[in-house]
Amino acid sequence: MAESPAGPAEGSTGEESSLALEDPQYREAVIDLLAAIAYGEISAFERLAEDAKLAPGLEDKVAIASMAATELGHVTMLRDRLAELGADPYAAMAPFREAIDQFHAHTAPSDWYEGLVKAFVGDGLAADFYREIAAYLDARTRDLIIASLSDAGHSQFVIDRVRSAIEADPRLGGRLALWGRRLMGEALTQAQRVAAEREALSALLAGGIDRPGLDLAAIGRMFSRITERHAARMEELGLAA
Amino acid sequence: MAESPAGPAEGSTGEESSLALEDPQYREAVIDLLAAIAYGEISAFERLAEDAKLAPGLEDKVAIASMAATELGHVTMLRDRLAELGADPYAAMAPFREAIDQFHAHTAPSDWYEGLVKAFVGDGLAADFYREIAAYLDARTRDLIIASLSDAGHSQFVIDRVRSAIEADPRLGGRLALWGRRLMGEALTQAQRVAAEREALSALLAGGIDRPGLDLAAIGRMFSRITERHAARMEELGLAA
Repeated sequence: MAESPAGPAEGSTGEESSLALEDPQYREAVIDLLAAIAYGEISAFERLAEDAKLAPGLEDKVAIASMAATELGHVTMLRDRLAELGADPYAAMAPFREAIDQFHAHTAPSDWYEGLVKAFVGDGLAADFYREIAAYLDARTRDLIIASLSDAGHSQFVIDRVRSAIEADPRLGGRLALWGRRLMGEALTQAQRVAAEREALSALLAGGIDRPGLDLAAIGRMFSRITERHAARMEELGLAA
Repeated sequence: MAESPAGPAEGSTGEESSLALEDPQYREAVIDLLAAIAYGEISAFERLAEDAKLAPGLEDKVAIASMAATELGHVTMLRDRLAELGADPYAAMAPFREAIDQFHAHTAPSDWYEGLVKAFVGDGLAADFYREIAAYLDARTRDLIIASLSDAGHSQFVIDRVRSAIEADPRLGGRLALWGRRLMGEALTQAQRVAAEREALSALLAGGIDRPGLDLAAIGRMFSRITERHAARMEELGLAA
């Protein structure tokens, strides 16, 4: 358990960052990663804006619309950095549209509460996952990724709404617990798909000659940490993981 | 033509602002006005997020989604000020939902370009109208209103897209010119409806014992200015007003 998300790349300087980015495979992987995060945020904006329509009142509508706006607000800095790295930002996002769109197509909320749980759990899972990867990257990329993770869905508003709805109707708790498991399963399916398709991205986790990577055991522990945090989030909502 | 939007209230101080707000009818009118603007921005968010789906590409989608996010970003300060004035912000918005929802129901864009023109022309019209009214209010309310007007739709992006589409297909110019006139007509219809229904708000324009107001001739000139600016915006888009 020596790894921690902030571990291996600790102490990298800006100069090391530029050096790392001279490795074309590393650079390609960073472009992939930033593009995947950016498309994920655009897509989250669209889904949350859609969920806002299900809001039972104007105050709830504004709360979820604000989450949508927060997600979109991060796209600009990712897009600018992608351009700076010499990529066409929108072309770089294209390879991730299918997996992320599929995730959303398979997890379309059927009501307001499923939408809230998805915003909270989905955003949290994505943030944990990218934060884990960011720990193995150059300092500048890592800082950018961390700044672009929104915690948009991690709001007290969602916790309050879901907990009081379950109190009023305990059967809802059972349904939403299953829903949370389905979200986790679908997220893993699509993440594996991306890892299989994007060689540079999966090579990133394996490390390079002068860059520490993750062996299989470390990857296993990374997924344990992500799963544990998912369970903690479900518990915050008053749901069994 | 002595009035200018920044005219009559010029030089009001914070102290005068508090005094003005002690008049219950004035206060009620200010609450109405801020609530109408806030609901207008929530509603604009929803419509722009919907229009984003029509975008022909990811870059265009992000551009229009960013306008949506900008509109929503202004709601927070209006909501906070409404609460500070002792109003329940969402209850205060309720009387304006019908007129604003009707405006959007009657002007649902049938394609991407109608959506772009609506974003540009509709946002511009609303901003001109509120800026004209703001000129007759206490300094603090005026500053808040001006800060909450987004220019979200007034973007070079819209001008570029619409102009190049018309160049490629001149018939589109004719259709969009009619569309712009319909937007203006529908906006006036709903504005008149609100003025007829909300006495405090229309009394605001008429002025009070110690507050300058607008006579009919001045209101006429105000509408001339708004119409002229609308025509200028249509021209920027390459459209006949």
